[in-house]
Amino acid sequence: MSHSLKIALAAGVCLVAAAGAAYAQNNEQNLLKYRQGIMRAVAFQNGPLNAFAKGEAPWSPAIAQRAVNLAALSVIAGDVFPPAGKDIPNTDAKPEIWLDPDGFKKSMTAFQTEAAKLADLARAGNADGVKAQVAAVGKTCGGCHDTYRVKR
Amino acid sequence: MSHSLKIALAAGVCLVAAAGAAYAQNNEQNLLKYRQGIMRAVAFQNGPLNAFAKGEAPWSPAIAQRAVNLAALSVIAGDVFPPAGKDIPNTDAKPEIWLDPDGFKKSMTAFQTEAAKLADLARAGNADGVKAQVAAVGKTCGGCHDTYRVKR
Repeated sequence: MSHSLKIALAAGVCLVAAAGAAYAQNNEQNLLKYRQGIMRAVAFQNGPLNAFAKGEAPWSPAIAQRAVNLAALSVIAGDVFPPAGKDIPNTDAKPEIWLDPDGFKKSMTAFQTEAAKLADLARAGNADGVKAQVAAVGKTCGGCHDTYRVKR
Repeated sequence: MSHSLKIALAAGVCLVAAAGAAYAQNNEQNLLKYRQGIMRAVAFQNGPLNAFAKGEAPWSPAIAQRAVNLAALSVIAGDVFPPAGKDIPNTDAKPEIWLDPDGFKKSMTAFQTEAAKLADLARAGNADGVKAQVAAVGKTCGGCHDTYRVKR
């Protein structure tokens, strides 16, 4: 193999590696935006639901809508911590998510189960039931965050 | 009314007004994060779906999951442009969203309808159907963005 061909091949390998790294980094950033977007959307639903549970806001179709949205988002929340997400730097997601996938899945499933119950109560127009169930959902949020999210 | 009481009352009114403005601004920022989070989550699903539709990725359960997620997110997308969102500055959302609510609702409903069809096809494991339907969904994205999103 000629010297210049070796150089060209080496350069080619480097370019491919650099492109691969850039692609991975771009994917990581997309995944991070996805994750943060969903978690923020979850938080957005929680605000009015907590206000209602504390008696600071009356029962309304808008509150019911928050409950239904929360359940839909809880299903998608289970999609935002894939194996590919474990090496994204500078996030609040603790390595335990990927070191203890069974424990994390259990926590996520608890959230999804309680959020689904909340949505069912809201669809049935059971305001008192929603009020009580908001606490049950909140417990699953806190339980997961205690173990799997960096404390700030 | 004494002079000092008038001053105290005026100061009180100003404080309440300032607190109200801060609260509204905080709410606007929360709403904006919610909106952008959901739209980014929509875009995240579209990436793999488009790759599949172009033949760049094979049919897989992961692709089917994107379709199901997209349908769930399309429902929530209908929630992220409320009347309260019309005055948030520096966003890509055009005033036409709020000036032409019927037209916007029609565009949003078209997206939700086509995304729901996509999810049904994916759940049925109809890969060819999904491939064709990705284009139909994409058309509704583009149709809405053309009219209601600032061009960059």
